[in-house]
Formats: sequence, structure tokens, C-alpha cells
Amino acid sequence: MVQIKDLMNQDITLRPDGRAVDELRPVTITRHWTKAPEGSVLIECGDTRVLCTATFTQGVPRWRRDSGEGWVTAEYAMLPRATSERTDRESVKGKIGGRTHEISRLIGRCLRGVVDMRALGENQIQIDCDVLQADGGTRTASITGAYVALADAVAWAKAHGVIKQNKKVLKDCVSAVSVGVINGKPMLDLPYIEDSQAMTDMNVAMTGSGDFIEIQGTAEHRPFSRDELNTLLDLATVGNRQLQALQAQALAQ
Amino acid sequence: MVQIKDLMNQDITLRPDGRAVDELRPVTITRHWTKAPEGSVLIECGDTRVLCTATFTQGVPRWRRDSGEGWVTAEYAMLPRATSERTDRESVKGKIGGRTHEISRLIGRCLRGVVDMRALGENQIQIDCDVLQADGGTRTASITGAYVALADAVAWAKAHGVIKQNKKVLKDCVSAVSVGVINGKPMLDLPYIEDSQAMTDMNVAMTGSGDFIEIQGTAEHRPFSRDELNTLLDLATVGNRQLQALQAQALAQ
Amino acid sequence: MVQIKDLMNQDITLRPDGRAVDELRPVTITRHWTKAPEGSVLIECGDTRVLCTATFTQGVPRWRRDSGEGWVTAEYAMLPRATSERTDRESVKGKIGGRTHEISRLIGRCLRGVVDMRALGENQIQIDCDVLQADGGTRTASITGAYVALADAVAWAKAHGVIKQNKKVLKDCVSAVSVGVINGKPMLDLPYIEDSQAMTDMNVAMTGSGDFIEIQGTAEHRPFSRDELNTLLDLATVGNRQLQALQAQALAQ
Amino acid sequence: MVQIKDLMNQDITLRPDGRAVDELRPVTITRHWTKAPEGSVLIECGDTRVLCTATFTQGVPRWRRDSGEGWVTAEYAMLPRATSERTDRESVKGKIGGRTHEISRLIGRCLRGVVDMRALGENQIQIDCDVLQADGGTRTASITGAYVALADAVAWAKAHGVIKQNKKVLKDCVSAVSVGVINGKPMLDLPYIEDSQAMTDMNVAMTGSGDFIEIQGTAEHRPFSRDELNTLLDLATVGNRQLQALQAQALAQ
Amino acid sequence: MVQIKDLMNQDITLRPDGRAVDELRPVTITRHWTKAPEGSVLIECGDTRVLCTATFTQGVPRWRRDSGEGWVTAEYAMLPRATSERTDRESVKGKIGGRTHEISRLIGRCLRGVVDMRALGENQIQIDCDVLQADGGTRTASITGAYVALADAVAWAKAHGVIKQNKKVLKDCVSAVSVGVINGKPMLDLPYIEDSQAMTDMNVAMTGSGDFIEIQGTAEHRPFSRDELNTLLDLATVGNRQLQALQAQALAQ
Amino acid sequence: MVQIKDLMNQDITLRPDGRAVDELRPVTITRHWTKAPEGSVLIECGDTRVLCTATFTQGVPRWRRDSGEGWVTAEYAMLPRATSERTDRESVKGKIGGRTHEISRLIGRCLRGVVDMRALGENQIQIDCDVLQADGGTRTASITGAYVALADAVAWAKAHGVIKQNKKVLKDCVSAVSVGVINGKPMLDLPYIEDSQAMTDMNVAMTGSGDFIEIQGTAEHRPFSRDELNTLLDLATVGNRQLQALQAQALAQ
Repeated sequence: MVQIKDLMNQDITLRPDGRAVDELRPVTITRHWTKAPEGSVLIECGDTRVLCTATFTQGVPRWRRDSGEGWVTAEYAMLPRATSERTDRESVKGKIGGRTHEISRLIGRCLRGVVDMRALGENQIQIDCDVLQADGGTRTASITGAYVALADAVAWAKAHGVIKQNKKVLKDCVSAVSVGVINGKPMLDLPYIEDSQAMTDMNVAMTGSGDFIEIQGTAEHRPFSRDELNTLLDLATVGNRQLQALQAQALAQ
Repeated sequence: MVQIKDLMNQDITLRPDGRAVDELRPVTITRHWTKAPEGSVLIECGDTRVLCTATFTQGVPRWRRDSGEGWVTAEYAMLPRATSERTDRESVKGKIGGRTHEISRLIGRCLRGVVDMRALGENQIQIDCDVLQADGGTRTASITGAYVALADAVAWAKAHGVIKQNKKVLKDCVSAVSVGVINGKPMLDLPYIEDSQAMTDMNVAMTGSGDFIEIQGTAEHRPFSRDELNTLLDLATVGNRQLQALQAQALAQ
Repeated sequence: MVQIKDLMNQDITLRPDGRAVDELRPVTITRHWTKAPEGSVLIECGDTRVLCTATFTQGVPRWRRDSGEGWVTAEYAMLPRATSERTDRESVKGKIGGRTHEISRLIGRCLRGVVDMRALGENQIQIDCDVLQADGGTRTASITGAYVALADAVAWAKAHGVIKQNKKVLKDCVSAVSVGVINGKPMLDLPYIEDSQAMTDMNVAMTGSGDFIEIQGTAEHRPFSRDELNTLLDLATVGNRQLQALQAQALAQ
Repeated sequence: MVQIKDLMNQDITLRPDGRAVDELRPVTITRHWTKAPEGSVLIECGDTRVLCTATFTQGVPRWRRDSGEGWVTAEYAMLPRATSERTDRESVKGKIGGRTHEISRLIGRCLRGVVDMRALGENQIQIDCDVLQADGGTRTASITGAYVALADAVAWAKAHGVIKQNKKVLKDCVSAVSVGVINGKPMLDLPYIEDSQAMTDMNVAMTGSGDFIEIQGTAEHRPFSRDELNTLLDLATVGNRQLQALQAQALAQ
Repeated sequence: MVQIKDLMNQDITLRPDGRAVDELRPVTITRHWTKAPEGSVLIECGDTRVLCTATFTQGVPRWRRDSGEGWVTAEYAMLPRATSERTDRESVKGKIGGRTHEISRLIGRCLRGVVDMRALGENQIQIDCDVLQADGGTRTASITGAYVALADAVAWAKAHGVIKQNKKVLKDCVSAVSVGVINGKPMLDLPYIEDSQAMTDMNVAMTGSGDFIEIQGTAEHRPFSRDELNTLLDLATVGNRQLQALQAQALAQ
Repeated sequence: MVQIKDLMNQDITLRPDGRAVDELRPVTITRHWTKAPEGSVLIECGDTRVLCTATFTQGVPRWRRDSGEGWVTAEYAMLPRATSERTDRESVKGKIGGRTHEISRLIGRCLRGVVDMRALGENQIQIDCDVLQADGGTRTASITGAYVALADAVAWAKAHGVIKQNKKVLKDCVSAVSVGVINGKPMLDLPYIEDSQAMTDMNVAMTGSGDFIEIQGTAEHRPFSRDELNTLLDLATVGNRQLQALQAQALAQ
């Protein structure tokens, strides 16, 4: 960790909430938060609060039948007043916005990246990530929480004899965290106040083995250099390691 | 209360959760459950759990302008996995179902029934009731919780000088409860397991003064007599009085 | 009837159209108004004019298959210029409004309340209520007219050998009427001019045996007391009895 | 008329309803069929029955403002059970079908073809044609009936001082009729049973002066020759002249 | 041709692009413009440029199954910036406009008019006409180009053994052209600048044998007489003969 | 370049089209491909063919008014038969799919990343990228082509005096290219046949100065290591430099 801090010429007083640049917000993972779903996890990252549920269904969509393989899909949504200004419901507008689509697809890809579809067999797991309160990093919190719900749903299927105990459905764990450049300084885990003024914003999903499942870096406000990219990836690695430790702790309980 | 019990020839062991026929499920009302909304209340009635938020906005919709009066509107929705089977999202289907519309309109009418629109002035309050977990009575829990969120939003507006302190915006409180006839016996506050086998199902919204704001009684399975109606209304009166006491307690904290 | 009038301290000159408070508008029920449907009824209640058709189809929706039971469903709509101001078509807007949904569901429930689904067998009856001219009470006129169309469709099915003659598909008849409190006075069968100024508005669907199928009472403007409720139910009973006599007359022709 | 009959080598017994090939079905035009619209006409052509209403509104759509000219638009729809098989509502399907769009546009063009938009001034007339019962020729009956409703709406506007009495808003009348080739024989005014087996199907809208506003001829089943076209246009001329006489009669009452 | 010119009292300098009144714009037909479709044709008529593709699929829609007959359907669309003002995408608006529907249906009917559905067998051909650049006559160019794509798709099916070589799927060729009356003068093949000021506008689809598949004549601005109609049809015959020669040339390459 | 080849242990015969792993497909950029748009570019990358248009409009959307800043937005779409299997039109389905939304947003962000919104002033540029033929890399070809169309639209605005000549609206150029890992080997510019079997797929948008605007790396099939990421970024840098040279050449003509 020492190198990262040096590299960034860190100014500890910089962040509104007093965190160091490579420090996560407090994270809480609560399993079985609701009763009905096969996996149900409330994840809180600072003030961001997402309910992640996993629905296990036997059978797969038509296009996947007779393949011997399963499928994992995800939907992301926000309650209208998760945000400081009320957002109109997409159900009322009659269409799903681009941002929602983009994030739903991201979450789905990240989870599929750690699932052995053959071991899952012809079963489907539907992930729902509903943001109850939003303060930045909702998509990365969704991925991190959804992995735990996914693990619970797989365990449920094994406990109920739908999947054999010896199948290794989950090839690895996955978590995600946001990083960004604020006033020229790379930082880990941006709350809304920082995110909205970031020059560059990156979401990084990593496996427990330290490889990448998804990197999405955007620079609407100022392009970022290869050096900045490297620092951001270092920060993301730090954050994801901690998140994966918390996932493991939650699942061990 | 004595008369009611006599009238119903009550069999205390009848209900799956051991409640008496005129007994509410445990109710918890938590204010300020999320930070952003002007009013934010988590109401739990047994396993039914609804997040009710109230959004206060200055100004009214176009058709209401220059009337000197405000407006209160409501939207109801369920998370996909609030129920034992996953429900498809209405945003994904691209249209709002009839049941959602019906309940949203019911909640809106009940709250408008206790608001003095002239005292509210040209301001709008939008109520969002999102069911996080469903076990029967979601629409009545929504009304009961939404009233508390509404009261908080009105208080917020007064504290911020948007409405004068001396304006009496809320003419009365309002709560709602479900009653129904199960195997010929009228009962108070039906969880899902009872609701699904009810011959008659009625939702009753009442003011603190004991008058009715809305009565919706349905008998798809067996018509109900005037006598049954009277017993159901007695039960609803019992339930609403208790709910209003809990509302008052919550608002007093 | 005497008691009701006493109770209401009736002022005969009160109503714009000169009716007594417990008097229905003139009602006409015309069967076979169009040729194609298995049941086709034009009902006129004062200036309100609704075309109610019943479409009989063998087979049921997928979720009902192999249950041995039938299904009855209803859709309500208004022609754009049924009203004094033109209403935009819901087909053009691309979505069905809440009011339409609410009324369609109400009509469906009321008719299902008198149908023995097992006697109907795996057949479906679709009710369409299209308001050609609206002057208050369109949803109650729809229910009253739709019952006659439903009876014709059942008779058609028996005449065509789809349902055995000895099956008692209709357990009872059903009609509906609106009642309301205007300037503090309960009244029967509100035309638009009264409906729009009602403090309380209630729609009551009753069977021939005098029991209730549906009660929907709303008090956006002023809550109503238990006493008022009782008077309104008395008025509704008077009205529904007359409507059911007219249904029987029409069906006897 | 003599020439036409010769030209067609007419076989009087050919048509299911016993009509001659150049004979219209019985036509009834009833004005003021509903009370609310500025023009409201029920037109019956055989068993085809269309309610045509005209809504007069001061002001024009945004793109037409400050042009000094008015606008006329039309919407066509069918009740679900106007046809022998029930048609799903377009409002329920959430989109308007191609056939509906095509016919709505046709009606609008035909009526605009006889309106002097400058004389109309910045006012809009919306035509609604709702088919209550369909037996072929619904689009042509709509045009013929809508013209009468349009004339009534213009008269209403003059009577209410919205348009000056001396303005000649209607340049001419317009009516429409279908013609087609059945088993090689051109015929006038096709009911559904003929229409569905027509090789060629043509709708012809003409002014009182005998000119064409719209010709739509389609030959999915067998192309038609210039000679056949000429015979069809002769038949359409015969039919439209009679329809225009009936329009004039109706408007004279 | 001599008669036509006389009849029209032609003024050669009349047209903005210097053409004679009975002269087509330059037409180019390029086959195999894209690689994937079974038929892919870029047709250019002056500055109008339409990509017409034909997709051959084995099997037919459900309603056509076990009929032994095939089906041909068409969809028309415009790129947003095919026009001088950008047009909003219909996918973004969420609904297809009336004009698009009308033209899609026209193209489908015209092509079906020359296809022997029995010879096609239970196969479907989907035509897509996408306007890349619009300068009037996009619907007629679509029909003319789509016929060539259709012929290529049929040839593909024969070459791949899906249809027997000896089946005569195409009964005839079909092309279409626009004609119109401008300042009182009938003219052939209107570019946008002429089309927008036409009193009468007609689209005429004809077979190689000189018969009509579809005639659509519209006169929003001034009705047209039988004589004008005849002249317009003469012009359309001239134009379609030339277009059919170009289709044959293209297919011969 | 030497290092990259060494690093990848390159096998020149690996790729179906005979390219080296760090070799782009042939690229053609044609400006002014259609006449109407302010910028209109056809870009061809191998068989991928995208029409990119830029529409310049004075004024900005409401939320941007009085900010003194402009806006750039983008929409991506595919013709139905750009692909080997026909894709249903999103306009017909009535909603935009997630993939379309995701790519449209990506293109918009990349272009905004090089635009000085203050120099653009309160003007809007709408980018439309319509894929005429798809063979992998459609989103990156869209970005590369759209930049040229954007530059033309800015030049048009300067030529027409809407933007002052001395304003530097474009801060830099931007291009994008896909890279991926196939059978363990990183490669540049994947056609469909490679893309569909890629373990990892990354799209990289870079400025002329060599910084990143957007990185999107996805590993549904196998996570990628930091070393692989670095090689992929090296390849993307090689590709983007060449694309930017081609953009400059095209704009110089």
C-alpha cells in the first residue's frame, strides 16, 4: 500500500468525509434481508444502500434449452426517491432509460464471468439490484452484493437437491469498486459529491484471483493517461481485495 | 370490543399465526429510514414491509396552477422479489398493470381526503410506496405509512418556511386496514395465506375522527350480507384506532 | 321507502333534473343491439349510454387450463367524444390510464361474483363495455348492462351445445348503482353534474338476493360517517332492486 | 346508368343480398346521435354502422400557429366486437396497427380536400370515426358520415360566432364508396362477404362536382386492367352521387 | 408518347432540374450492395437512395401454417438524417408513425401482387426498405428496388434447393412511380421540391403486363378530374415501362 | 512495434483473414456521403460499414439553456439485415434494446470528451451512427467515423457564421478500436468471427495526444490479467494512431 500513497502524493485532508484516498467507505453486508428470495442481501457502502436478490428457477430461456448450460441475468433499478431529487419511475414513463440498461448489462456480465454455466446446469438465476438509497457507487455495490446473493442462491439449490453438492458452480468470487480522478488526484470509492466532479470515473470488477472481469473507464471531462490508469487500477485492486474479504466474512456466518 | 367477539362466535385457534380474529399483526413504523426524502417511513405489518416516501415540491401541475391549492399524488410499486414468485418489472414490460394503477389511485385518494389543499398552497407532495416484502395488506400498510411520511413532509415544509407554521394542512390523520371473511368468519388484518382464501376482502381507510375515507369491499367468491358488512366495519374500526395510535406515537418521537 | 325519505329530510326540488333523491334516471336496456357478439346490450341510464358486449370463446387462458373452470374478464373504454371535452384515445397515447384499469377490473370482479366457474367449464367470456355517451354512472351502467349481455352469451352457449342445458352458470343476477352525498344529502344515481360536486361517491354492486358483490366508497372531499354509509346503502338497495327488475324484464322478452 | 350495366354484362342474381352490381346498400344518416360533440352522425350502410363525431376547438397545433389557417384531422377505430371475431383493443396492445393508421390518414386527407383552411381560420376540427358494427366499407362509410359531422361542426362554429357567417369553409361536399372486382365482375359497395373475396378492391372519394379527392385501388390477388379501372370508376361515380344526395337530404333536415 | 405531350401542352423549361414532364430522373440499380441478405439492392432515383433487402426464411407465421402457401411482408423506414431536417427515430419515440405504416403496407401489397404464394411454398420473404437519402418518390423507389431484391432472394432459394427450379414464384415483375399535377400540369417522377407543391399526388404500381397493382391518388390541395387522372395514368405507364426495363437489365447482369 | 510482436509470441497464420495480430482491417472514410447532413461520413472497416451523420442545430435542450455551453449526443442503430440473421426493428418492437442504449451512450461520451462545450456555445450536435453492414467493431467504427462527421459539422457552423472562426471547438481528435484475447492471444481489430470467440473483448477510445477517453473491457468467458490488459492497451494504441492518421487524411481532402 505504501507505494500507492507515495505515487499519489496524497493529501489526507482532501476528502469531504475525511477518508484517505485509498480508503473504502464503511461496508455492511446483511444476508437474508427479505424472506422470499433464494438469495437476499442488503449491501451498504457508506450511504449507498442496495437490496440484491437472487431468484433461482429451474429451466432456462428458450434460446438456451438443450444446451446443458444455465444462465444468469441481472436487472438494476432505483427507487424514485433514492436520490436527492425524485426520479420519475421508468414503469410510468413506459420505457427503460439508457443508464439502467447499461448498468443491468454490466452487472449481468460480471456475475456470469465467475459462473460455470455447465456446472449450473439448465437453471436460471435472476439477479435484482434495487437501489434504496443512492450516494455514488450504486453499480459497484450492486455487483459486490449480488455476488453474495448469488452464492446464497447456489447454496439453496444444492441444499434443495437441484444442483449436486459436488458441482463447483462458482469459479471464483467477484466484487467491484469505483475509482476516479478528482482535481487531478486518483481516489478510491467515490460518493456522489466526488463522483459528480470527477474528471475520470472508472468501475473495476475483479475476481478473487486478482484478474479483471470488467473495466469501464470514462473521461468526459478530461482524458486520462496510461500512468493515471495504472494508479487507478492499483487503487481498485486495494478496494476489491477488502470487499472480497467482507464477502467471505458474510458468507462464513 | 365485547360485542364484536360475541357476534363472531370467535374460535381463537383459527388463525395460522395464532392471532385473535380482531388482532392486528405487530406493527413497526420507522421514520427517516432514508435520508433524501422530505418524509421517509418504513412500515412493517407482520412480514409486510413498505417504504413510504413523501417528496415535497414547490409548484403544482399545470392544470392546478393559479388555483391557490396544492396537490397530493401517490405511486405504488412492488420490488420483483417482494413476493414468493418473482414478478416481472413493469418498467421492463413497458406498461403499468391494472392492480398497480388501482392501488396507486386508492392511496392518493385516501391521503387527499385528509389534506386541506388550500392550506397546502400551490405545492405538491408525491407519495411513493414501494413494497420491499409482501405478505398481504400491502395497500393498507402503504396508506398507514404514507400518512406518517406525509406529516413529516408537511413539517419539513413548515420548518423550511415554505408553508406558514399556522396553516393546518392536515385536517385529520388517516390509516387503513384490511378485513375479510374466511371460512365464514370475519377477521382483521389478513396476511397472504388468509387473503388468498378469503370469500370477501375489504380495505377500510378511516380518519382519526372515526369517519370513512374509503371503503372497498370485494366478493368474487361469495357475496356478503349487510350483517357481515357491519361486522367487518366494526373490526376495521378496531384496527384503525390502534394503527392511528401507533402513527401518533411514531410522530411524537 | 318511507324511512329513507324521513331519514334524509328530503327536499324534492333539490335535483337539477327534478328527480326525488331515491329515484333512478330512466333506464332502457336493448338486447341484440349489434349482430356479431354472443351478447350485445345497449344500456341507457338517463343520457349515459353504454354498449356492453359479451364474447364467448371456447378454451381459457393458459394459467387456467386443465382446471375444469372458466373465466370472465372485462374491458371498459370511452369513445373520445362521449364526454363534453374530447378525451385523447388511449390507443394513441399508447397506454391505458389508471381510471380505465380500475373500472375494467371492477366490472370483471362484479360479473365473476355471480358466475359458477365450474358450471361454465373451460370457456371464456370477455365483456366489453364501451361508453358511447357519458353522463355519470358509466361504470355502474356497464355492470348492469354487462350482466344482461353475459346472460345472453351463456344462453347462446347452451343453445349451441357448448354448455349443457342443465348447468346453472349464473348463480344470481348482479346490478350496480351509484349513490353519493351532495350538499350533505344522500342521493341515488348521480348524473355528471351531481357527481362532480359530490362530497362522497359510492358504487354498490348487489346480487338479486340482496347481498353485496362490491362496495366502493370514496370521500376525497369530506369523510362520511357510519350513519351516512347506512343511508347510502339503503338507497343503493332501492336502486339495485329496480335495476334487477328491468334486467329480468329485458331478458324475458 | 344504361351504359354501365351493358359494359358489365350484369348478372342480377350474382350478389348474396340480391342487389344489382351498381346498387348501394340501404344508407341511413342520423345527425345529433350523441349530445356532446359539435357534430355527431351515425351512418349506417347495410350492417356497417359508424359513429362519426366532429370536435371543434379554437386554436391549432403548434406547427400551424400564426399561419391564419386551420386544420382538420381524423382518427378511426373499431370497437372490439364490431367484427365477427373479437379484435384486441389497440389501447391494450399499446400500439396502433398499420390498418388503423392507414385509414385514419385517408379520412383526414379526404376531409381536408374540401375544407378551405383559410376560411376555417386558426381553428381545429377533430374527426372521430368509431365503427360500432363492421360489414365491409367501414372506411368509406366513415368518410361519408364524417363529412356530415364536419358540416354540423362548421355550422355550430358559425352559430356561436367563432367563424363568420359569410366564410365559405366547405368548398364542396365529399363522399366515398368502395368498388371491387368479384369473380371478374366489377361491383359497387362491397359488404364483408364480397370484400374478402375481391380480386381488386378500390375506395374512391369524390366531391360533389364529380372530381376525385382520393383513389386507392389494390390488387393483391389479380392485377386490374385500365378497362376494369374505368368501369370501377364509373360505378364509384354512380355510388357517390347517391351518397351525396343523401348527405344533402340529411343536412337539409 | 406524342399524344401525352400534346395533351399536356408541355413547357420544357418548367422543371427545376430541366427534365421533360414525362422524363424519369436517372435511375441506378445496384445488386448485392450488402453481403448478408439473400437479396440486397441499392436503388437510386435522382438523389433518392433506398437500400432494399430481401430476407428469405423457411417457414411461415403461425396463422399461415399448413396452408401450403408462403408470405411476403415489408417494412419501410428512413434514417434520421435522410431528410433536410432531422427526423426523430421511431425506435426512440417508441411507436411507428402513420406514414411509415402506410408505406410499409403499400410495399407489401405491391410485391405480394406478383408472387404466386403456392409456388413459394411455406417460406417467408421479408422486405426491408431503408431510405438512406430522401428526395421524393421514396415509396415508389422502394417498390421498384424491392422487386429486384425479391427476385434475387427467390433465385437464392432455388440455387440452395429450398424452392424447386421449375416453380414460377414470380408471376410478373412490378415497379412503381409517382406522378402529380403541379401548377395544373401533370408530371412524371416528382422530386421533393415538386412533390411538396403538388396539387395532386399519385403513386402507381404496375406489372410488366401493363396492369395495375396499386393506384393511390391523393388530392388534398385540389381535386382532380377524370381527364387529369387519365393523363397521370398515361405518364405512369411511360415511367413504369422504363423502370421495368432497368429492372430486367439489372437482373440480367 | 517490435516489442509488441515479441510480447505476443505472434503467429502470423493465426487469423482467418491473414492479418497480423497488430494489423487493422482496411479502412475507408468517405466524407459527404449523403447531402443533407452538416456532416456525413461513410466509414468502412473491413466489411463493417457505418453511416455517421452529424446534425448541427442552434439552441440546446431545455436543461442546458442559459449555460453558455453546447451539447453533443449520439444515437446508434443497425439496419435489420446488417447482420447475417435479420434483427427485428426496435421501432417495431416499440422499445430500444440494452445493447443499443449502451453503444449510443458510449459514442456520445467519447465525442463529448474532445469537445469544448463553451467554445461550441449554445448549439447542439446530434450524431447518428447507422450500421449498414456489420462485421464486428461497429461501435468503434462509429466513434472513428463520427469524429470526422463532427469535425465537418463544426466546420459547417464556422463557414455559416454560427460559430466564430477562432473558436477551438475540438480540443483533440478521438478514434476507437477493438482489441481482444483469442485463444490466449491478444489481437487488434476483431471481425465478427473473432469477436464471437473472444475470451476478453475491449474497446478503447483514445485522443490524438494518446490519452484515453474510454476503456471498456469485458471478460465474460475468462478473466484477464494485468499483463494481458497492458498488451491489449499497447495494441489499441497502435490501432488508434493509424485510425487518427486516416481521419486527418480524410479531413485534409
